[in-house]
Amino acid sequence: MERHHCGKLHESDIGSKVMLKGWMQKRRDLGGLIFIDLRDRSGIVQVVFNPEVSSEALKVAETVRNEYVLEIHGEVLGRSENTINENLETGAIEIQAEKLEILNKAKNPPFMIEEESDVAEDLRLKYRYLDLRRKPMQETFLLRHKTNQVVRNFLNDDGYLEMETPMLTKSTPEGARDYLVPSRVHPGEFYALPQSPQLFKQLLMMSGFEKYYQIARCFRDEDLRADRQPEFTQIDIETSFMSKEEIMDMTERMMGKVMKEVKGIELETPLPRMRYEEAMERFGSDKPDTRFGMELVNVSELVKDSGFKVFSGAVSTGGQVSAINVKGQADAFSRKDIDKLTEFVKGYGAKGLAWMKVDEAQWNGPIAKFFGEDELIGLGNAVEAEPGDLILFVADKVTVVQEGLGALRLKLGKQLELIDESKFNFLWVTDWPLLEYDEDAGRYFAAHHPFTMPEPDEVNLLETDPGKVHAQAYDLVLNGYELGGGSLRIYNKEMQDRMFEVLGFSKEEAKEQFGFLLDALEYGTPPHGGIALGLDRIVMLLAGRNNLRDTILFPKTASASCLLTEAPGDVSEAQLEELHLQTTAKKDSNQ
Amino acid sequence: MERHHCGKLHESDIGSKVMLKGWMQKRRDLGGLIFIDLRDRSGIVQVVFNPEVSSEALKVAETVRNEYVLEIHGEVLGRSENTINENLETGAIEIQAEKLEILNKAKNPPFMIEEESDVAEDLRLKYRYLDLRRKPMQETFLLRHKTNQVVRNFLNDDGYLEMETPMLTKSTPEGARDYLVPSRVHPGEFYALPQSPQLFKQLLMMSGFEKYYQIARCFRDEDLRADRQPEFTQIDIETSFMSKEEIMDMTERMMGKVMKEVKGIELETPLPRMRYEEAMERFGSDKPDTRFGMELVNVSELVKDSGFKVFSGAVSTGGQVSAINVKGQADAFSRKDIDKLTEFVKGYGAKGLAWMKVDEAQWNGPIAKFFGEDELIGLGNAVEAEPGDLILFVADKVTVVQEGLGALRLKLGKQLELIDESKFNFLWVTDWPLLEYDEDAGRYFAAHHPFTMPEPDEVNLLETDPGKVHAQAYDLVLNGYELGGGSLRIYNKEMQDRMFEVLGFSKEEAKEQFGFLLDALEYGTPPHGGIALGLDRIVMLLAGRNNLRDTILFPKTASASCLLTEAPGDVSEAQLEELHLQTTAKKDSNQ
Repeated sequence: MERHHCGKLHESDIGSKVMLKGWMQKRRDLGGLIFIDLRDRSGIVQVVFNPEVSSEALKVAETVRNEYVLEIHGEVLGRSENTINENLETGAIEIQAEKLEILNKAKNPPFMIEEESDVAEDLRLKYRYLDLRRKPMQETFLLRHKTNQVVRNFLNDDGYLEMETPMLTKSTPEGARDYLVPSRVHPGEFYALPQSPQLFKQLLMMSGFEKYYQIARCFRDEDLRADRQPEFTQIDIETSFMSKEEIMDMTERMMGKVMKEVKGIELETPLPRMRYEEAMERFGSDKPDTRFGMELVNVSELVKDSGFKVFSGAVSTGGQVSAINVKGQADAFSRKDIDKLTEFVKGYGAKGLAWMKVDEAQWNGPIAKFFGEDELIGLGNAVEAEPGDLILFVADKVTVVQEGLGALRLKLGKQLELIDESKFNFLWVTDWPLLEYDEDAGRYFAAHHPFTMPEPDEVNLLETDPGKVHAQAYDLVLNGYELGGGSLRIYNKEMQDRMFEVLGFSKEEAKEQFGFLLDALEYGTPPHGGIALGLDRIVMLLAGRNNLRDTILFPKTASASCLLTEAPGDVSEAQLEELHLQTTAKKDSNQ
Repeated sequence: MERHHCGKLHESDIGSKVMLKGWMQKRRDLGGLIFIDLRDRSGIVQVVFNPEVSSEALKVAETVRNEYVLEIHGEVLGRSENTINENLETGAIEIQAEKLEILNKAKNPPFMIEEESDVAEDLRLKYRYLDLRRKPMQETFLLRHKTNQVVRNFLNDDGYLEMETPMLTKSTPEGARDYLVPSRVHPGEFYALPQSPQLFKQLLMMSGFEKYYQIARCFRDEDLRADRQPEFTQIDIETSFMSKEEIMDMTERMMGKVMKEVKGIELETPLPRMRYEEAMERFGSDKPDTRFGMELVNVSELVKDSGFKVFSGAVSTGGQVSAINVKGQADAFSRKDIDKLTEFVKGYGAKGLAWMKVDEAQWNGPIAKFFGEDELIGLGNAVEAEPGDLILFVADKVTVVQEGLGALRLKLGKQLELIDESKFNFLWVTDWPLLEYDEDAGRYFAAHHPFTMPEPDEVNLLETDPGKVHAQAYDLVLNGYELGGGSLRIYNKEMQDRMFEVLGFSKEEAKEQFGFLLDALEYGTPPHGGIALGLDRIVMLLAGRNNLRDTILFPKTASASCLLTEAPGDVSEAQLEELHLQTTAKKDSNQ
């Protein structure tokens, strides 16, 4: 008999004989009957064991415990009006069991397989195979599967070829820290796991494939935060002969399909765009969450001559003063509360947080007295102040003002529940700086990567004022998260040589590390560009999760360990010897 | 203007204005005109530069060389009858160029971008981006892309979820040699790259996902042959609650779709099946190439009492005598030729190769005299001998007879061109031995892997005669290549414990290495099984290539090097220090 699926049985099946296989979710013994909730991937259905139907099945049912794996034969019955379970998809029916076979037993699980679980994450990760049985986890990975397929179908239809780039590649010093793989055949040499398929996808354009994609695993050996994992997955795309506009348009159509088919949401395109500098100025972030206001307002011009030296001094030394208006919260925030916010912005390097409260008649607060009436009117207009508002100011170096107030805006937005969690606000951030100066290293680094094409009309600044040059780069932001980004790439050897020079590479170093790419640029490289979007993060946002670990089947902890398999682990001396390695770690002699 | 594609222009486009971008394949200057073959991913079209249309474009065209990247605007013209090029898809038309822009220049490539290339493979691999521009390479990766999509669509429609298992996993001692990845956070500890997602896909079944697939990258640090690569890709599938028959049927439907949609070939199903023992007996191979006959015939019974002591002795000491009939080749093979075949089988451990030639009236050859007339009639019937046939015999231990004659059959099949290369002969090989005895190690090893379920009615032999137990395993073979295989898995802790015991694991060792799996078996593991098929090999066979490297974009050489990027390579002392490693390799002091 063919297997039926628990969650797919409906009133139209009443009277049918069915065979079900699944896990016991719950058992109730009631008035000589036994009721079992049977769960499979499709959902849950109630099975009733009645001694008048099969005393044998009932007898087996008596021995059945949570998470036993069962095979049940029976008939679909309609439930009487008063026993219909509205909370259950299949609540209008039940299965009258005629036969029950235990396919496998189960020990009592360390935590219940329930919708929401408040057990410690460590326990969930150790027993990941139990955690993954929970409905929200099942739904997340179904959503991930669907997202994958929608992306692939879109790209296939658009002429992209799915292509696999190598995992055992060469270590390059730019970018994040590589995971290394020692070579057995070449003593003392190492492969690196790819941080992204960047160089290979460019090589594929040089190979004439024109349109490439890959849902690619990438690796970074960095210290982990809540939204980082040592291995992560990106939707990796590269095209030849397309303009920046065409690549962004293609990406919008792709994300439109995903939103439509996975979430049933019609995405309005074209998506809004914002220059990097505007994003920093208005939101204090290169990935603005535009689901709520409370934007930063640069009031430097208004306060540059004020009697409050902290403000005027910041402006006169090249810094700035910006403010946010915490609408209607003047009374809600005590001095103590504001002290806490001050501590918060100090974490971003700010020396302090100035504040004023707007009253019907006047502005209050310790700094109010330093401002003339005109200045207060000007400030009031700038931040659209109304009575009852709390205005917060940071005066400092530009980056400190933006980062501090930007973070404070986000914190307050969450705290005051200003964010409409049902919204999906996409945003392009464009016109990124090409280079970032690193004080410690005393040189410029590529803000994206060294293969990004500068804005053509700024190329002349590359040697004279490199910090001013913008990149032909674009990042896609969703609800304050960077989904990913891309750029047009350099396709001309002279330009690539110049870029490496600006980055402080000698000709020899450039050749040693990227010689194959520089060579390839001379053999007919087409203009090309692309984009890479973080799949884990897309899934996290679409599934409404707030932790990347919930979007990855077998994630690592903050110390890059797998609590289930206990990776990483020891290896034998013989293995190390074959790899021409010795460890310098001093291990406990008991181990 | 939107871009058109070279290979997609046809007579129906005559009169249209088009814009093309691509590579210059060839240039001919003829009677004041310049003809250029322009190539893009879709194909080639001829562009003609005529001074009467645009002397400017002609002037640029004069500077254009092979592999320049061009943008061309022009009009589609029909060709006159006598200039139609039948060899070109677009040979009935040409583009009359009105404008030509050079998008990028190209140095003279180290080899021509032609259909067939006879340059050394090392050079092709070093300039892989040029090699990949060649039509057969473009076609192979288009075929690979298509195969991927057909497989995915089939599995999606069949209810399978695409799921990603980790790449940074735990090293396990069973199986091939792992690639290791040192941990920075855990001094002296290592991850391993997966040889297959085997344990994780079983854990996904334990997680209740029921149907999983992944087109998964796998890694084995083994010495390489022509059909091995350090990283390879498999179509990895696992299901719960399905029988062996159901899994094989699903696989057949999947391969049927692939053959139909990629090759246009209707696959006849069900596919033929053969027990492992029969495959070894009839073809001397566990992956028989059934595209030709010349099967091995076990003649032990017929010769066990013969006067030829080599034969009778082999049988009486537990070995066997088998023969192949090289049809009609008696005259074609001289003694010297046969001596060479003898050397060949000696490579498989055989002590020699006996032979007889069948004449109209009698059998000839040095051993013919040892056999009575009845014996010769029996032999003749057994191998279906006819006048003009050459019969070859090996008498030895069973494995030597099978492997030696099996290899000889393949060699002669190729040499005598008995193989119909247009055929795609699929075959299931079933009922594999569960265990293999390793003389050196003095213990049994799992023939597939330690999680394979034994045949239920042979389980009782597990401790008493383990070599006799068969596995519930199946391999899919195509044209003599193993595409892959699968099995039902052990889903019961007691059985898994017994299996580890048979394999010589102490309870502690089993727990140390596979404790998480043994634990998981106790929490409601469903019956499950699956299959894994080598994608690279499938593509190789479907594309008619004979080298796995031609199916992988950036393959490694036999010494596991990438000639393009020069991976593996040196890393800095600082990198090693962070990983708590020292290399024991003695490097050249110049390096």
